[in-house]
Amino acid sequence: MQNRRIVLSQRPSGMADVSTTSLELRERPVCGAGEALIKVGLLSIDPTIRTWMNDAPGYLAPIAIGDVIRSGGAGVVVESHSDRYAIGDVVIGMTGWQEWAIASAENRFSVVPRGLGLDLATVMNVLGTTGLTAYFGLMDVGLFRPGDVVVVSGAGGATGSVVGQIARAKGAGKVVGIAGGPEKCAEVVELYGFDECLDYRAAHLGRRLRAACPEGVDLYFDNVGGEILDAVLANIAMNSRIVLCGAISQYNSLETSKGIAHTPMLIMRRGRMQGFIVFDFASRYGEAQVELAAMVHAGTLAHQEHLVHGLEHALDAMNHLFTGANHGKTLVVVDESVRLDG
Amino acid sequence: MQNRRIVLSQRPSGMADVSTTSLELRERPVCGAGEALIKVGLLSIDPTIRTWMNDAPGYLAPIAIGDVIRSGGAGVVVESHSDRYAIGDVVIGMTGWQEWAIASAENRFSVVPRGLGLDLATVMNVLGTTGLTAYFGLMDVGLFRPGDVVVVSGAGGATGSVVGQIARAKGAGKVVGIAGGPEKCAEVVELYGFDECLDYRAAHLGRRLRAACPEGVDLYFDNVGGEILDAVLANIAMNSRIVLCGAISQYNSLETSKGIAHTPMLIMRRGRMQGFIVFDFASRYGEAQVELAAMVHAGTLAHQEHLVHGLEHALDAMNHLFTGANHGKTLVVVDESVRLDG
Repeated sequence: MQNRRIVLSQRPSGMADVSTTSLELRERPVCGAGEALIKVGLLSIDPTIRTWMNDAPGYLAPIAIGDVIRSGGAGVVVESHSDRYAIGDVVIGMTGWQEWAIASAENRFSVVPRGLGLDLATVMNVLGTTGLTAYFGLMDVGLFRPGDVVVVSGAGGATGSVVGQIARAKGAGKVVGIAGGPEKCAEVVELYGFDECLDYRAAHLGRRLRAACPEGVDLYFDNVGGEILDAVLANIAMNSRIVLCGAISQYNSLETSKGIAHTPMLIMRRGRMQGFIVFDFASRYGEAQVELAAMVHAGTLAHQEHLVHGLEHALDAMNHLFTGANHGKTLVVVDESVRLDG
Repeated sequence: MQNRRIVLSQRPSGMADVSTTSLELRERPVCGAGEALIKVGLLSIDPTIRTWMNDAPGYLAPIAIGDVIRSGGAGVVVESHSDRYAIGDVVIGMTGWQEWAIASAENRFSVVPRGLGLDLATVMNVLGTTGLTAYFGLMDVGLFRPGDVVVVSGAGGATGSVVGQIARAKGAGKVVGIAGGPEKCAEVVELYGFDECLDYRAAHLGRRLRAACPEGVDLYFDNVGGEILDAVLANIAMNSRIVLCGAISQYNSLETSKGIAHTPMLIMRRGRMQGFIVFDFASRYGEAQVELAAMVHAGTLAHQEHLVHGLEHALDAMNHLFTGANHGKTLVVVDESVRLDG
C-alpha cells in the first residue's frame, strides 16, 4: 500500500538533472469524503512542466520544494466517495508524477467517455491538452481563415504536428513547418502532410522562410520563442496573427535571451501577437474533442505516441523534449494495466 | 511663382543631419484637371517621417532620393479644378515639406469644416492624425475598459498626452505615464492630469512600474518600443492589451536592438500585443473628431502646439522629437497667413 512519487528536491539551473528530483516512497494517499482514489496509468510529459520547476511567476504557482512534480496524467478510479467518479472509470487530470492520486474538489478529473474506439495514449495525445492546445490556439487565438499561409514551429512535436494537420484539413493556403534536423523535417512533410518543413539548425532561416512564404506569413503558431519567433516576425503578412503557445527555446536557458528585435513589424503589418493557455478554453473542450476524434477515425490526423516505461524515467523523458529526441507525444507508462476498453 | 521644397538627398544613418536633406527652388506645381493647388500653411512633424527616410519595408514606400520629404500638413486651396475643393477651403493631407502642394485623385485632402471654433494648429494636433491615433489606438486596438490600469510611454508627447487624457475621461482605474526627465514627468502629471509619471532615465524602471501598478498593467500604449516595452511586458496583468503605436527608441538606432525578452509573459498572462496605423481607421475619423472636439471645448483635453517658424527648420524640428526637446505637438509654420476663421 505504498506510493512511489517523484518530488522536486532542488530547482534546476538550466537543464534539469539528477539533483533536481528524487524518488520517494510514501504511504498510499487516503481517499476522504467527496474524493476518489486513482491508480495512475500514464503521465503526459509536457515542456511546461519545466517552467513550473522555476521559482518564477507563471500561469500556475511554482512547484514547491519537496512537492510531487505537477503533471497531467490518466488513471483508473479504484475507490470513490464522490458522485462524480465510479469505480472503473478512466479519468484524466493532474495526477502528478506518482503511482496514486486523489481526485478532489480542488483537483478535478474528467471521466473519459466509454466507446470512443481509441486507446488511452491516443486519447491523452489528440483529445488531451496537446490536441486541445493545437485546436484552440489555431482556431480561436489565431482566428484561422481558409487560405491562410500558416507556419508552425516545433512542427514535429506533439502540438505542432496537430496544428499543421488541422490547418491543412480546414483549407490553409500553405502549411510550413519549422523543426530541428533533416530527419524531423522529413517526418513533418511525409507523416504529417505539411507542404514544406524548414530546418532551423541550417543557416539563413529567415531567407528560406521568405522563399517558402513569398507573400508573408498570415498565421504563426509559436511553440519555441526566441530567434525563430524573431525570424517569423520579420516575414509576417498584413493583419497576421501570431499565436504564442510555448517558448521551449527559453525554458532551460541560462543566459538572458537575445530578445525579439522585430516587434515593430507588428506596426508595419498591423500584426497581432497573443499568448494563451489551453485551460482558458476548458468549458469548450467537448466541441474540439468531437472534431479531433472524427479526424482520427477518418484517418486524417496522423499522430505518434512515444511511450517511456517506468515512473523513474519521467525526468529523462521531459529532458528529451528539449533536445528534440522525442517523436510525437511523450507519455510515461506508470502502470500498463490501466487501459480503455474498446 | 516658385516652390521652395525640402528633398531627401541622402538616407541618414542614425540621426538625420545636414547631409540628409536639401532645400530646392522649383517651379510652382501646375494644377491640372481634377486637381487643386494648395498653399501650405503648417506641417505636421511626426516621428514616422524618420522611418520613411530608410530604405526599409514599412507601411508606406520609402521616400525616394530626390523626392520631397513626405509629411502631413495643412493649407488653403488657391486654385481648383475639382468639385471636392473650393477656393478658400482649408484642407489637411499629405503636403510634403514644401510651400505648394497639389491635391489629386492619388493624393486626397480633407476639407476642414467651418465653424469649429478651434485654431488650425489645434485642429492639426487634436483632430488630426495625432489625436486620432490616440483615440483609435486606445479604444479600438487597446479595447479600453473602465477601471483599466493604463500605462502610456512618450506620455509628454503629442499622442501619449492625448491617450492618457482620454483614458482618464473614460474612467481608467489609474493612468501612469512614462517620460524622459523630471521636467517632462511633472508636465505629464500637472498639465495632462496623469496620476503618476515615471522617468525612464532614472534607474529601476521595472521596479518603479511594479510599485505604481501593483496589480499589473491592463493596457499599455507604446510609443517607444525597446527596453521600455520590455519593462512593461514584465509587469502585465491577466488579459492585458499592448498597443504598438510607435517605436521611436529604435528609429535612429544604429545598433541592432537588444530586443524584447519578455514575450513569454504574453503566454503567462494571456496578453495580446497588436500594432496599428491610424490610416486603417480613416472611414471612422468623424466619430472620434466629434468626441475630441467636444473635449477641447469642454476644457478637458489639455494640448500644446510647439510652433517652429520656417520651412528650413523642419529637419531640426523632426530631430527634436527624438531628443525629447519638444513639448506637445510640433508643427512647422510655412505660411502664417493660412488660418481658420472663427
